[in-house]
Amino acid sequence: MHGAVIHAPGDVRYEERPDPTILEPTDALVRTVAACVCGSDLWRYRGISPVNQPTPIGHEFCGIVESVGEAVTTVKPGDFVVGGFNPSDNACPVCRKGAQANCQHGAHYDGAQADRIRIPWADGTLVATPSMPDDDLIPSLLALSDVMCTGWHAAVSAGVGPGSSVAVVGDGAVGLCAVLASVQLGATTVIAMSRHEARQQVAREFGATHIVTERDEAGIAAIRDLTDGIGADCVLECVGTEGARHQAIGSVRDGGNVGLVGVPHGDLPVNDLFWRNVGVKGGPAHCRAYLPHLMDLVWSKAINPGRVFDLDLPLSQIGEAYAAMDERRAIKSLVRP
Amino acid sequence: MHGAVIHAPGDVRYEERPDPTILEPTDALVRTVAACVCGSDLWRYRGISPVNQPTPIGHEFCGIVESVGEAVTTVKPGDFVVGGFNPSDNACPVCRKGAQANCQHGAHYDGAQADRIRIPWADGTLVATPSMPDDDLIPSLLALSDVMCTGWHAAVSAGVGPGSSVAVVGDGAVGLCAVLASVQLGATTVIAMSRHEARQQVAREFGATHIVTERDEAGIAAIRDLTDGIGADCVLECVGTEGARHQAIGSVRDGGNVGLVGVPHGDLPVNDLFWRNVGVKGGPAHCRAYLPHLMDLVWSKAINPGRVFDLDLPLSQIGEAYAAMDERRAIKSLVRP
Repeated sequence: MHGAVIHAPGDVRYEERPDPTILEPTDALVRTVAACVCGSDLWRYRGISPVNQPTPIGHEFCGIVESVGEAVTTVKPGDFVVGGFNPSDNACPVCRKGAQANCQHGAHYDGAQADRIRIPWADGTLVATPSMPDDDLIPSLLALSDVMCTGWHAAVSAGVGPGSSVAVVGDGAVGLCAVLASVQLGATTVIAMSRHEARQQVAREFGATHIVTERDEAGIAAIRDLTDGIGADCVLECVGTEGARHQAIGSVRDGGNVGLVGVPHGDLPVNDLFWRNVGVKGGPAHCRAYLPHLMDLVWSKAINPGRVFDLDLPLSQIGEAYAAMDERRAIKSLVRP
Repeated sequence: MHGAVIHAPGDVRYEERPDPTILEPTDALVRTVAACVCGSDLWRYRGISPVNQPTPIGHEFCGIVESVGEAVTTVKPGDFVVGGFNPSDNACPVCRKGAQANCQHGAHYDGAQADRIRIPWADGTLVATPSMPDDDLIPSLLALSDVMCTGWHAAVSAGVGPGSSVAVVGDGAVGLCAVLASVQLGATTVIAMSRHEARQQVAREFGATHIVTERDEAGIAAIRDLTDGIGADCVLECVGTEGARHQAIGSVRDGGNVGLVGVPHGDLPVNDLFWRNVGVKGGPAHCRAYLPHLMDLVWSKAINPGRVFDLDLPLSQIGEAYAAMDERRAIKSLVRP
């Protein structure tokens, strides 16, 4: 089969790779229908994370089950499935608490930008659609494997609920999905921070009630202006830089919550957060917890998170899929074998 | 009138002070029925916080309204009232969000260990009992002015709810009230960390299901043993030291929450919290938000937070009230004018 292999920063190749096989009785083999490039894949592409040797890459996919190990009972060959980027057994004590991202037997796979992929813990990871999806649903189903679950996780972690005011820091695919999640969870004020017209447009389609183009102190002031002078109930930090966290903590009201899904660096100013009664929570998304509900929403066309894909290429053009995201010509690239 | 004045570390005196008067139309004057010594009062008593000049001290009280300013409408002379340690107008945009500890016009008073006290924002701070309370209710009503609200706030901040497993770090009056709060909020496993027999006894009376006497890594291991090997859903940190926070973060399960009410020092290890999906929230208690419900619980004798008082002295013996707490001969001292 063929798949994407990263050789060095800026060098992702479409090349022949060995077909995966069932290794554990809990595995499934999935023929990829669509895969995509993640913002976190760009860390290696940009040389921020090391590439020590040629490595298969990609962790977002949807596809059709080809075969399953003998212990697998909930999906079968021929099923169309989506799985989160962080496989979970959905059975350990941590999973039973709804924290599947922290599954005691959790795994991570790489190499989903390929014709086929081996999925560990298939029962605890994959969710099948009710029937074979129409083509127009593929992008939104694919978005469930990471960005939509991650945006949802930001909103859930920050306690977004009916009537909440929400500010979203970050206008990448995750930030846009966080806007969509907030609207679904009942937020009535949803502020997207973005200075890119195409992304503002998606944010508006997803239900953002306001766009703030300012950053830093001016951005904080603009958000306060929209929230009775006090800041947003919930701020969703979907970037991960020190500056984004500063923006988030400055934009939340006293007693409010910051949901973090951008991988944080540095420390939190706990004393300031304490006196302001500001909560902070987040991390990798509990995909398996969210997938059934989000799949229902996609299946019934209540949400269309696939709108974040603005580039659709054959897998063989994986290099361009990376370059377009790296150069910010695309919000997010979808590839099809 | 007479009241307590701190002159220097270790030197709190009962002495004559001027009678307070109504200064603002939103004030009330309250004749103190009972007051008490707070763990935070000990910071100055122990020389941890400075005492620059003789200063009236105390911020917990219950009593009878003597007079009110012309703008006060919800309490009247003759009412028995309790107020939180952090006056709030209960009307500003932050208060309307339920974050009264962060009221835009919030205040702090000192000098409640006295015959009389002036309460700012009386309508937004004081809550009157349905009628004159029996003597046996006085300690529990007094506990509502700080420790019970603060223990409740720890539990609310950590999201304690039906079925939660909870570990409480700290066996002072606040930690013990956090045990009581957790039980009231529906927690089914409530672990009190304590190595003092008298405090263990109160924790058990308050509904603790388990006592852990170990500390540090052994304490963390003991809590994991009681929580399916994964740690508690919610950990309530009621101390404020670096060691207590380490204990709390080590004792919470992945995906769980730490409620902070001990004033924190230092930074939070945000990267570790992120990968574990552990939330942190807390601060000064939103007393005015909690008071009506907690007063109902005390009035109906569903809870008895006054049990934390194990020393009951005339106000004139305020020096001994401090010394007994400082020397750990008392959990918490109540004083009566």
